Amino acid sequence: MSIRALLLLFLACSSQAAGAADESWLLTLDRWGNPQHETLSLARDGNALSGFLAREPLTGTLRRDRLRFRVVAADGSRCDYDGRRERDRLRGVADCPDTNDPDRRAQHAFSARRLPTRPSQAPRVHDYVPTDFSNTFSAERLPVLTIWPGDSVRTKTIDSGGVDEHGRTVALYGNPQTGPFFVAGAEPGDTLAVRIVRLRLNRDYADSLDGIVARALTTTQAVDFAHLGKPARWTLDRERGVARPQRAGGALDHFEVPLRPMLGGLGVAPGPGSPPMSTGDTGRHGGNMDFNEIVEGSTVLLPVFQPGALLYLGDAHALQGDGETSQFALETSMEVEIHVELLRGKTIAMPRVESADAIHVLGQAGSLDDALRAATAGMLQWLRQDYGLDAAQAAQVLGSSVRYRVANLAGRSVGLAASIDTARLATLRPERSEAAR
Amino acid sequence: MSIRALLLLFLACSSQAAGAADESWLLTLDRWGNPQHETLSLARDGNALSGFLAREPLTGTLRRDRLRFRVVAADGSRCDYDGRRERDRLRGVADCPDTNDPDRRAQHAFSARRLPTRPSQAPRVHDYVPTDFSNTFSAERLPVLTIWPGDSVRTKTIDSGGVDEHGRTVALYGNPQTGPFFVAGAEPGDTLAVRIVRLRLNRDYADSLDGIVARALTTTQAVDFAHLGKPARWTLDRERGVARPQRAGGALDHFEVPLRPMLGGLGVAPGPGSPPMSTGDTGRHGGNMDFNEIVEGSTVLLPVFQPGALLYLGDAHALQGDGETSQFALETSMEVEIHVELLRGKTIAMPRVESADAIHVLGQAGSLDDALRAATAGMLQWLRQDYGLDAAQAAQVLGSSVRYRVANLAGRSVGLAASIDTARLATLRPERSEAAR
Amino acid sequence: MSIRALLLLFLACSSQAAGAADESWLLTLDRWGNPQHETLSLARDGNALSGFLAREPLTGTLRRDRLRFRVVAADGSRCDYDGRRERDRLRGVADCPDTNDPDRRAQHAFSARRLPTRPSQAPRVHDYVPTDFSNTFSAERLPVLTIWPGDSVRTKTIDSGGVDEHGRTVALYGNPQTGPFFVAGAEPGDTLAVRIVRLRLNRDYADSLDGIVARALTTTQAVDFAHLGKPARWTLDRERGVARPQRAGGALDHFEVPLRPMLGGLGVAPGPGSPPMSTGDTGRHGGNMDFNEIVEGSTVLLPVFQPGALLYLGDAHALQGDGETSQFALETSMEVEIHVELLRGKTIAMPRVESADAIHVLGQAGSLDDALRAATAGMLQWLRQDYGLDAAQAAQVLGSSVRYRVANLAGRSVGLAASIDTARLATLRPERSEAAR
Amino acid sequence: MSIRALLLLFLACSSQAAGAADESWLLTLDRWGNPQHETLSLARDGNALSGFLAREPLTGTLRRDRLRFRVVAADGSRCDYDGRRERDRLRGVADCPDTNDPDRRAQHAFSARRLPTRPSQAPRVHDYVPTDFSNTFSAERLPVLTIWPGDSVRTKTIDSGGVDEHGRTVALYGNPQTGPFFVAGAEPGDTLAVRIVRLRLNRDYADSLDGIVARALTTTQAVDFAHLGKPARWTLDRERGVARPQRAGGALDHFEVPLRPMLGGLGVAPGPGSPPMSTGDTGRHGGNMDFNEIVEGSTVLLPVFQPGALLYLGDAHALQGDGETSQFALETSMEVEIHVELLRGKTIAMPRVESADAIHVLGQAGSLDDALRAATAGMLQWLRQDYGLDAAQAAQVLGSSVRYRVANLAGRSVGLAASIDTARLATLRPERSEAAR
Repeated sequence: MSIRALLLLFLACSSQAAGAADESWLLTLDRWGNPQHETLSLARDGNALSGFLAREPLTGTLRRDRLRFRVVAADGSRCDYDGRRERDRLRGVADCPDTNDPDRRAQHAFSARRLPTRPSQAPRVHDYVPTDFSNTFSAERLPVLTIWPGDSVRTKTIDSGGVDEHGRTVALYGNPQTGPFFVAGAEPGDTLAVRIVRLRLNRDYADSLDGIVARALTTTQAVDFAHLGKPARWTLDRERGVARPQRAGGALDHFEVPLRPMLGGLGVAPGPGSPPMSTGDTGRHGGNMDFNEIVEGSTVLLPVFQPGALLYLGDAHALQGDGETSQFALETSMEVEIHVELLRGKTIAMPRVESADAIHVLGQAGSLDDALRAATAGMLQWLRQDYGLDAAQAAQVLGSSVRYRVANLAGRSVGLAASIDTARLATLRPERSEAAR
Repeated sequence: MSIRALLLLFLACSSQAAGAADESWLLTLDRWGNPQHETLSLARDGNALSGFLAREPLTGTLRRDRLRFRVVAADGSRCDYDGRRERDRLRGVADCPDTNDPDRRAQHAFSARRLPTRPSQAPRVHDYVPTDFSNTFSAERLPVLTIWPGDSVRTKTIDSGGVDEHGRTVALYGNPQTGPFFVAGAEPGDTLAVRIVRLRLNRDYADSLDGIVARALTTTQAVDFAHLGKPARWTLDRERGVARPQRAGGALDHFEVPLRPMLGGLGVAPGPGSPPMSTGDTGRHGGNMDFNEIVEGSTVLLPVFQPGALLYLGDAHALQGDGETSQFALETSMEVEIHVELLRGKTIAMPRVESADAIHVLGQAGSLDDALRAATAGMLQWLRQDYGLDAAQAAQVLGSSVRYRVANLAGRSVGLAASIDTARLATLRPERSEAAR
Repeated sequence: MSIRALLLLFLACSSQAAGAADESWLLTLDRWGNPQHETLSLARDGNALSGFLAREPLTGTLRRDRLRFRVVAADGSRCDYDGRRERDRLRGVADCPDTNDPDRRAQHAFSARRLPTRPSQAPRVHDYVPTDFSNTFSAERLPVLTIWPGDSVRTKTIDSGGVDEHGRTVALYGNPQTGPFFVAGAEPGDTLAVRIVRLRLNRDYADSLDGIVARALTTTQAVDFAHLGKPARWTLDRERGVARPQRAGGALDHFEVPLRPMLGGLGVAPGPGSPPMSTGDTGRHGGNMDFNEIVEGSTVLLPVFQPGALLYLGDAHALQGDGETSQFALETSMEVEIHVELLRGKTIAMPRVESADAIHVLGQAGSLDDALRAATAGMLQWLRQDYGLDAAQAAQVLGSSVRYRVANLAGRSVGLAASIDTARLATLRPERSEAAR
Repeated sequence: MSIRALLLLFLACSSQAAGAADESWLLTLDRWGNPQHETLSLARDGNALSGFLAREPLTGTLRRDRLRFRVVAADGSRCDYDGRRERDRLRGVADCPDTNDPDRRAQHAFSARRLPTRPSQAPRVHDYVPTDFSNTFSAERLPVLTIWPGDSVRTKTIDSGGVDEHGRTVALYGNPQTGPFFVAGAEPGDTLAVRIVRLRLNRDYADSLDGIVARALTTTQAVDFAHLGKPARWTLDRERGVARPQRAGGALDHFEVPLRPMLGGLGVAPGPGSPPMSTGDTGRHGGNMDFNEIVEGSTVLLPVFQPGALLYLGDAHALQGDGETSQFALETSMEVEIHVELLRGKTIAMPRVESADAIHVLGQAGSLDDALRAATAGMLQWLRQDYGLDAAQAAQVLGSSVRYRVANLAGRSVGLAASIDTARLATLRPERSEAAR
């Protein structure tokens, strides 16, 4: 077992200990104009410093405001940080091996901001009333709130056009998101488990379109549907629990569809090297998944790519057919409560959803064929990782029990979900994480 | 309204009258080695003949065994048939316009066999015990039975490996089919409605594989699953209604899946110009659809491409996950009862299924992306044809209510179903055909 | 090394010896209605028989017209054949292990027809004037000619509409093919090398359409092109070597395109278990490849799936853009001379083409994405098989030198070619087969 | 003709007049945190102001440093800007109609920076030595240089790993780009024509990999190629004009490939509403196209989405097979000279390339099937827009003359080019823009 492995084990086993570090900082390295964020944990003993940077161990000194420390990576390479501290800020220069040539050194400026400490170990429920919104999933946007694993947040989302529950435009259209929430302790390689505790309509209409996305049309149908795509408003009858198109007319005079509120957007910041992602886009970070199983009671598992994960949510729909074929679902504002847990050291390849009666993996790709491959790979990973199956066993569970549903056709990538009913899995006696239940 | 339209109307309105023709024949034109089948209805008044060939009107004479008649098509072109009758056979030569040059004539040999007449107008239940099986959906295979709209058939299917309920190999592997059944009166442009009245297991095991089809694997997963695809037998516990893998071992020791018998194969003969289709293939004619909603109680609607439709069925599965990802589902033999109706003059673009709680259209294509387009086109056709919706209304029903599920990944084409819950459609007050209910 | 391997080696090394068998027959086993063709080589020594059936050794006796022999497969299983000979026909019954249960036996009728013997070892040039044409690539159609490796055939093809060089319709539309030619000695697992020695126009017009296939249209473009697809005739100016649209008008008044005659269709019979393939379809057997590098001077390599390969050709085009986007290229009749060689024991995964300056592998699949994967796999196989490269080397040749071109968009499958310039390969010092040059 | 159309016409016809505006500014509106850039042209007559904002006319006043103006859009809606000027900066608030409700008003802060004026009307050649590089195509990055249509730029690019001609790492890996260059006068809806005047190697090695991208692998091949993807360095022999792999060994000992330097990356900033695009990504803005026809002598046409276009370039390759199948082509640094022209008022749907002997349109999408549709749509647009063809004529040119080649398989989107030889187009007598020649 390598030293690195031992350290990781140590960290995984002793989150309390890690939390016991005197101070936590979010350090940002400026790599030729590209910020790279890492968690810096510092413990101080006189002038001596110890701790971790991005889970690699460090040692150093702090004399007055002069801070110096060295980080030794598992492969033996080392970086020297030399800077100054001003209250809750650090600034300095890091000297590290050149990316392309280990015999050369490269210097990069760094800065850091102090992270808040947890006021108490008891889980809390935070109320957050959003005042501005984000049109990207970004690691550069300052958190609106820092929370801890086990905490819940009660907040609101506005509709995809930027309109709130009072009908006021308060953000730019394009799925503006509430957030981000900084989940203290979350690190790249962890998994965030976000349970949708409550998801409720707070106004009486939703906006949609009357067209069909190009991806769902044959060239023959395209001729008939070319002129469509016009706004179509729906009445949301919260008392009776149904939605009705307002001016569809004729054969739709009595048409109504049961409300089934869902969160279209839920995502974390993408990793270093990726620019901010459009809130209309999807990926391994989640994003504009538009999957109609992300409803009250469901838990969404997302891989963490940045310290604090930086969780965003928005673009709620009163209901949606598979694939969001009309480009806009029934777009509306919503009251939301989420509960957040952290699965430390658990790495998943792509978003997972646990709903009332099934588990789902979302494949997101440029074609349904590739999305299905991705979703299947994610489900096979899940079955093997959490249910202890070997490849042949996983293949037999898949062949007898998988369901494949289209999630999303309206974005740059399409989404397709591989699902297995929870009842089928009961006989496998899983050892699933507490958090994910 | 054209003369042709009037005649079609006449035919559609007066199937009794058409049935009242003295004689029905299946005429086969030999077009340079390619058989083309058409229904010939002849009424005789002295030496004078009248009637229809493939729904075009004809007039002619029958003197002794010399038969001559002329068919005038809606576009004014005409064919002259000159032949001889020997009991239940006709043979002769047709003189028709050249396919490429209407000013030239081309001669083709023809023959015909007399079709049976309906013994009574009352619907009947036929018992048919198959003795041989077909490895193609073909218009050239002689019918095993002639039935009439409203009739039912009780029969058996063997498994995809050609093995019957006693474990005996009685046909070549590759989804050998029972049939074909000739549905008297069915003509190209009609639709066949096949209700699965009964579908029951008749043995205690099913054969499957432990692998995953290439279409569902990423290159990363492929490395792990490359060595798999070995036979895997399942026990079918008919009493408890579950299936269990026999030797999966370990984590699957207690794994069991509810039985849900389904017909993997159901198809009609393809149209003229198409060679016999493999029973492993799918298309507008149905075929090896492997859609797990084709269960007891479901009705499958198939377009008719040949006189008599020529219906085949086989490849039943004890149960199947979406997509038949293990290449073989739980393959087994089955007792089957079907009830057949004919929707005269109703033309559908591709197979439809009406199950207990939803309607489904199957798109079959070379990629899931194209299959989804096809399925959507079929669903839009259905909504507009049977529920009287215009394009904008159909788009809104789709956007709010469609579900997309993968049916089949194991063949040359993939299948993807667009579905809408029957409950949603209730408020549309459809005027659906009696037969299809 | 197994006995089977030794035997295959023996056969591969001693085709003369194999050719020295007293008699060759094409034996057809009736497997529950499905014909399976195998080559039967018999050598007689008194009453004793020895030889091979489908390359498995046999021993037996011939007493008067009673023929009995046993074939022992490499896995030790055996089949007993018992029949009677009537001149150039054999008929009888084979007793073999059950497909699904090796402990059971199954009986199947068989028949055989005597294959002609080679009149001399010298290569010959055959002139064949076709009188009828095939609308399928089929193993069941009787050969129009038996040829031997090294022979050439001079013949004609008609256009895709069945029209010959005199403008007469002589076959059913849909790419009617000339053939099949039975290549004596060709066995499943071999490769056929067909060089297009000569390919010349023999009339002054070609027929095309003015539309665009759905596969090449976006939904936006579809609206503009929906009404198109009408016949468009082109003048073929053989003297000046160009084609001109006859009635395109306006901006196309002076438009002309260099003639580049190509064979759209070239294929062998598919293997046992596959029904006849439509001449509009493609696959590993070649077929309606519509690849515009199959021109005079090119050599096409096709895998052999049936004894005698059964080679068909047709559907020549005066010229064609990539993909045959107008559904019909410039369809016309042609004079053709081909030279046929056999690469015994060489197995290729899919069609290959060697043109004047490059080698090409054709991937055929339901999407361009899958076709590219198939073409790449075929090219990697070629580089490793014929040029002795390991995987890393093949990857570097591919990355620096591959060209990918779309061949065909107009059929059920699409075709995409992976190509490498011959000049690039010169430095690899290939050891390529003589025949394929 | 609407007032708006008249104004556009006026602007298009009188770029001199527009250029004669006293001052040009780049105004940035802060739409709820999302910057929207527009060109502000101001002419002053005493205290009175006139001019244009984003091509809409404005009138107003400037008294001391207080600036107020009103912009009336073609639909009659109006925005009032009220701010202060401090030397080369403006700051203030804009009052405009609400996006979702025209009866409401919304206020947004704005700022502006003064744009430089052209020193002389004569075209200039700029020398620009880059000192930092961009890892996104972004509208937010400050221009490194302002140029005018007709100008040229001589500069350098570094390799995709951030390494310059001296082997020093000077930027973060991931295709760091030189730029952006602000092209004065370029507005959304225009087209930029970038001619690659000179593209020359300036070091003697390139870095590549020995693997194959997942997109090009079947699951069968994946097993063999799973362990590959390791660094592979090539020697660039500039004297002999060839590249050789350094340690490929064995069969590749004498393998060499002709150098053909190309620009892998060339793009403009994406439009408002899109976050910065990764330099590994592609789209309508160009980007990491990796198309091996973008060589010395080629002209690339790119749609303009932002004032000044903001042109970036980088990621040059010494040579590349189609598709960049090894994920890295032969990555190296380069000397570059480009010449830039502006096609005012000409709108193209996606990137076009004019090379020595052909025109090409690049379709970029999530699958090759969609990329082919996009490329075809772009080529049809080109043929109709610049060659005056109607739909039927364009279809016939396409069917007889199009070539389809895969450009790029290594990114999130794939690229596929539709091309037509220039020689074919000669007979169409195009009226092509001067700039694009």
